[in-house]
Amino acid sequence: VRVGKLKAVIAHGGGPTAVLNASLAGVIAGSRGRFAALCAARFGLSGILNQDLTDLLCVPEAQVIAVAGTPGSAIGSSRRKLSEDDMARLVQVLRKQDIRVVFHTGGNGSMQTALELLRHASTAGFELQVIGIPKTIDNDLMVTHHTPGYASTAYFFACAARDAGADVRSLPSPVCVLETLGRNAGWIVAATALARKYTDDPPHLIYCPERHVSLDQIAADVEGVYRRLGYVMVTVCEGQLDERGLPFGAQVDRPGSAVHQLASNLGHTLAQHITERTGLRARAEKPGLVGRSCGPFARERDRREAYDCGFAAAVAADEGRSGMMVALDANGGTFLTPFEMVARHERLLPAEWISPAGNDVTQEFLEYASPLVGEVSGYAVL
Amino acid sequence: VRVGKLKAVIAHGGGPTAVLNASLAGVIAGSRGRFAALCAARFGLSGILNQDLTDLLCVPEAQVIAVAGTPGSAIGSSRRKLSEDDMARLVQVLRKQDIRVVFHTGGNGSMQTALELLRHASTAGFELQVIGIPKTIDNDLMVTHHTPGYASTAYFFACAARDAGADVRSLPSPVCVLETLGRNAGWIVAATALARKYTDDPPHLIYCPERHVSLDQIAADVEGVYRRLGYVMVTVCEGQLDERGLPFGAQVDRPGSAVHQLASNLGHTLAQHITERTGLRARAEKPGLVGRSCGPFARERDRREAYDCGFAAAVAADEGRSGMMVALDANGGTFLTPFEMVARHERLLPAEWISPAGNDVTQEFLEYASPLVGEVSGYAVL
Repeated sequence: VRVGKLKAVIAHGGGPTAVLNASLAGVIAGSRGRFAALCAARFGLSGILNQDLTDLLCVPEAQVIAVAGTPGSAIGSSRRKLSEDDMARLVQVLRKQDIRVVFHTGGNGSMQTALELLRHASTAGFELQVIGIPKTIDNDLMVTHHTPGYASTAYFFACAARDAGADVRSLPSPVCVLETLGRNAGWIVAATALARKYTDDPPHLIYCPERHVSLDQIAADVEGVYRRLGYVMVTVCEGQLDERGLPFGAQVDRPGSAVHQLASNLGHTLAQHITERTGLRARAEKPGLVGRSCGPFARERDRREAYDCGFAAAVAADEGRSGMMVALDANGGTFLTPFEMVARHERLLPAEWISPAGNDVTQEFLEYASPLVGEVSGYAVL
Repeated sequence: VRVGKLKAVIAHGGGPTAVLNASLAGVIAGSRGRFAALCAARFGLSGILNQDLTDLLCVPEAQVIAVAGTPGSAIGSSRRKLSEDDMARLVQVLRKQDIRVVFHTGGNGSMQTALELLRHASTAGFELQVIGIPKTIDNDLMVTHHTPGYASTAYFFACAARDAGADVRSLPSPVCVLETLGRNAGWIVAATALARKYTDDPPHLIYCPERHVSLDQIAADVEGVYRRLGYVMVTVCEGQLDERGLPFGAQVDRPGSAVHQLASNLGHTLAQHITERTGLRARAEKPGLVGRSCGPFARERDRREAYDCGFAAAVAADEGRSGMMVALDANGGTFLTPFEMVARHERLLPAEWISPAGNDVTQEFLEYASPLVGEVSGYAVL
């Protein structure tokens, strides 16, 4: 039997998105009246370790609503991997602060951390509820139909492919490579297909990292499109690998970090290789973080669902649930799924949603992504 | 005494902008009733050589209006430098087609071409009027207060600095370098200062290519900001050079082209150098063409002025003017200036608009740019 209201804390893990602050606003709104306090952990779970905690229920509602409309993370986030010692200390601090509920926002790595935190609390005999809130632009979480943050970034890159395409088409300057975010998953790069309205609209070649591809194949694809149309718009994901499963000679500026190794300069490297092999001038664009924090490109549905996931997490915790992540169905409704179903697993783009030639997506993908991303308006031509 | 209406042609030179098609629409609207035909030269003046000409006055007005709202160039453009032989042939084709008016849209290089075309026509005894229409995102034209295309790209990069800044601030991930367009001129990178609302808002360091800067200086600047704020948002123009006036080890993928040498990979190269010198993790973003063709970021004032320049060019030609470029005053009013005043000259950011330390802009620049670019909205914080 519960006596009085519990204290809760919210911490984010991993990179921010255009709508992460909407999830925060949802948790705050859902926690009002349900919890005695909702502490913000500054810069992820490390904020609990540092006891850098402020009560978000004291923030005026108007300010919460204003912050909900901004990209980035108003309470910070963290990529730091907690050690076993950190975990034990975390439980000690929670016990000391009498915080009984932890909301953890993030992707499959953050859900794994949430799972480990629960195990540590159990070992220490500390009664703790942990609820996960999905968040990743990469859209690579299992169970949930899609993840908050994905649609806004997908929309940014679809618009970028359309706009850079309009530019490249205007000059006899053959090849443009647009490097998208997405790490090892092709969900974002695939969504650039939504920019097309008519046959032969850019992007002409879409490479998803689920399918390794050789430079020879890319060069042949590029030459084929160039012969037909006179210009080529290529979209490629930062995590694309060659046919050996190795990076395309990408430079390493932080040895040991696979993500950074892949993300550091793929588009530029690929453009250089294309020029060497085809003789066509190729340039690369890499909007990078701008595509992840794209305030003006945030989609209303994405923002609303991010909010709903946060709110549902607060309700679930109030109902005594624990060890579960909030998930979204195809219509944006929320449900709960055990951490074990999502932690560490990576949901890649289904192989059958990549075209047989490996340089495009199928109609099935478009039917999946279009309702999420919404209309990408086309441009009139003469 | 003129007998009947003249035939005109319009050709663009150089890279497209977010509002170039508005200038085209302005020329079309201004030409209706004033000229017998307004031919579109496909892919710049080369389109005249190839006699690839269609009459734009036949295009329905609704379609012209729709195209006016799109980025890129609906009739193409060209970076090709015409030879003396090309020029002579150009005059022959114009004579054969009885085209007596040429509108040429572009920057200082295009105005030089326009001037040469007039000289060739004069030498050949062919009565020709040539009117220039300003267009360059780089804002580096003399006489005119600003150029159509600049404000929209400046707005894109200011928003990009704000949004990437919100992202970088969210994680303990120290340094982000945003590479902007602008070639040798600092007008665009300077405008990222408009993203700031409060003290210490990003961007924290702005380097204008008019001021050469050493890696030592950049590294010291970055370390200073990092010690104070814990993260650093740097904006740098693609044409930035080091203290010797040389590129920062930028890779060359098209030998002989200075622009491409500079533009190919500056931000990434700089981020690597910063990491080497400071030990801070640095990443780079390069939106590139996306910032030039930014449909959703086009500013209404910029689009209107682009249209007005096109319209004023048609009126000027109808009044018998020639050898002049349309220019804009501070309020967006149009006037004419001789080609000689603008051809080949490059207007750089005034030295006194760069801060004494060389890593920021002054209030005078903000007062110049703010009315052009308009409000860059800020983000609420907790």
